[in-house]
Amino acid sequence: MNSIFILKKDMVLSLNQFKTNLDPQLKEYVDSKTEELLKNTNDKFIKDILIYSKNLITGGGKRIRPYMAYLAYVSFGGASEKEIIKILLALELFHNYALIHDDIIDKGRTRHGQKTIHLYTYEKLFLDKRFGDLEHVAKSYAIIVGDILFGWISQLFFQSHIENKELAEQYFNKMADEVLMGQIIDADLASRQNPSLELIEEKTRLKTSRYTFVRPMQIGAVLANKNYGKEDFLDKLGTKLGVAFQMKDDLLDIVGNQKNIQKTPLLDISQHQHTFFTDYVFQYGTPEQKNFLKQCFGKNVTGNEEKIRKMFEISGAIDKGVEVIKKNLSQAKSMIEQSTLGEDYKQNFLEIIRLIEERNN
Amino acid sequence: MNSIFILKKDMVLSLNQFKTNLDPQLKEYVDSKTEELLKNTNDKFIKDILIYSKNLITGGGKRIRPYMAYLAYVSFGGASEKEIIKILLALELFHNYALIHDDIIDKGRTRHGQKTIHLYTYEKLFLDKRFGDLEHVAKSYAIIVGDILFGWISQLFFQSHIENKELAEQYFNKMADEVLMGQIIDADLASRQNPSLELIEEKTRLKTSRYTFVRPMQIGAVLANKNYGKEDFLDKLGTKLGVAFQMKDDLLDIVGNQKNIQKTPLLDISQHQHTFFTDYVFQYGTPEQKNFLKQCFGKNVTGNEEKIRKMFEISGAIDKGVEVIKKNLSQAKSMIEQSTLGEDYKQNFLEIIRLIEERNN
Repeated sequence: MNSIFILKKDMVLSLNQFKTNLDPQLKEYVDSKTEELLKNTNDKFIKDILIYSKNLITGGGKRIRPYMAYLAYVSFGGASEKEIIKILLALELFHNYALIHDDIIDKGRTRHGQKTIHLYTYEKLFLDKRFGDLEHVAKSYAIIVGDILFGWISQLFFQSHIENKELAEQYFNKMADEVLMGQIIDADLASRQNPSLELIEEKTRLKTSRYTFVRPMQIGAVLANKNYGKEDFLDKLGTKLGVAFQMKDDLLDIVGNQKNIQKTPLLDISQHQHTFFTDYVFQYGTPEQKNFLKQCFGKNVTGNEEKIRKMFEISGAIDKGVEVIKKNLSQAKSMIEQSTLGEDYKQNFLEIIRLIEERNN
Repeated sequence: MNSIFILKKDMVLSLNQFKTNLDPQLKEYVDSKTEELLKNTNDKFIKDILIYSKNLITGGGKRIRPYMAYLAYVSFGGASEKEIIKILLALELFHNYALIHDDIIDKGRTRHGQKTIHLYTYEKLFLDKRFGDLEHVAKSYAIIVGDILFGWISQLFFQSHIENKELAEQYFNKMADEVLMGQIIDADLASRQNPSLELIEEKTRLKTSRYTFVRPMQIGAVLANKNYGKEDFLDKLGTKLGVAFQMKDDLLDIVGNQKNIQKTPLLDISQHQHTFFTDYVFQYGTPEQKNFLKQCFGKNVTGNEEKIRKMFEISGAIDKGVEVIKKNLSQAKSMIEQSTLGEDYKQNFLEIIRLIEERNN
């Protein structure tokens, strides 16, 4: 780790400032680990894929999970400038591993505006005139690249000398179990015709609320003070932020500008992903709307995009969704304002709310 | 962890005794972690798959990797009965995670005589009349189940209070990087028509020598004494054992009794896996043998099994392979006999050699 500190005395970093400070350290770590790994082979093809993966990891992403941990850490009085970084990097690496496996499962084609690892590998293999089930080989590559990143995480925990890291590691493990259970539910949902609403909500709770907000904040809090991980405040606040964040994500999949969101639009529809919005139409839509959605669900949507968007609008799903997002964010806002946090910290938590509100990608 | 110790004073356990002692503790750990995980869902289907996975992990396997670590640990004077167990369990869990992902990559259908996780999930999904690309969903499940196990490993390291565990963790990380790099090479080889012999040897070095022997022994040795991880003896001995172990594995794929090996015979051939034996035929076979192997390679072998076996025999590949295995094992034997290890320990290392020699499954 180099000497750029991410914590400045008497100054809380905004998400953008935080990313600017964290990214060079993420790059340094991933670069050095990749270099070490590449010593094991002279094969040009393998080297090429691993370097592509490395650049994809360090080239994009908002760093919101390590930021939530950072925000909780400083808000609860943490001040160990150097040692927290390794834990924050572990959170970000975990996210990158999870995205690689998620992209395989969702058959995603782009990530951070670049080709996903399995797609890039597939094209490389193909151009190289290889043999056999190349799509499967490409997926296999991506599984292993994800596994490699996963393997690098524990080392960061071991290297950090921060206080209470044993406790933080426990929260980290819970986070991993939960998000993976959320992933299973997600994979499972995609193959069900009529899943229960309970299962859809369970997925959001595990994959977004706990994973993106509650657990990262608990990790930061417990590192600052061993008693703060269990704060009810973090659990409640994280849940509200998570519901709003996930619903905004699902909303952008329908109404988002394709250039901004840097992924295929209406992916949830073509991939048979149940969300608040699809569920709303199936419950409250007219018979025509229900039928139309059923017909499109899990199929290629090309050519039908505008018609699908209109259907979501007219059904009232969009308005209702926007209302639920607003309600969750306004409750989160009150919680922050009424908390005992210092004024500076409050402002930064409130900025997260603005970020979710204004998010358009 | 319960109170059954795996180290007995003045007595080195054989591999079988070791397995008998380790397995209840593995079961206890995996049971408790699975139970915790299952608290996150009420879904019967998901519970069923996770319980199947749990039983598959604890139901089979030789435990050779933790045994090599144990053997090195006691041979170099280690005596911390309780604390070493968690590290040994971590090694075995890592192996189980790796097998799950390996089975996806190799499209394996059976493991320890049971259905692989992706196959079991596929049949469950299918019988349940699900929707969409069920083979893909089943693979997705298996990817995540492997990830879950991987996530449980770091916790075991954190919970152990054994001396030098930071050093052991470094060897563990190297082992993970190496075996995963070996996996990439393996996946890559399957899609190549004419790979270099260098790449095939690189795969054996990473996937077997380092993974099954050198790194586990280094982990055990360094836990016993911080200076012993770097012993040249372990590196050299492990490499010889690894080459013999891998070649015996490849040999059994050709000549093994199907009932004993509990997997489809000639899997390497049907899956286009380059081994010492295929490489021998491609290099030294008659033009007819080369052509015949080319025709079978990567294809369904049903009906041709006997003809393929005969071809390997007549080409001289089997005899040459047996000779190379013998040579490596006899060199390993001399190394052990000439070492400064205590007599008891020598006997147990020699038993590993007998085990590889006599292995028929």
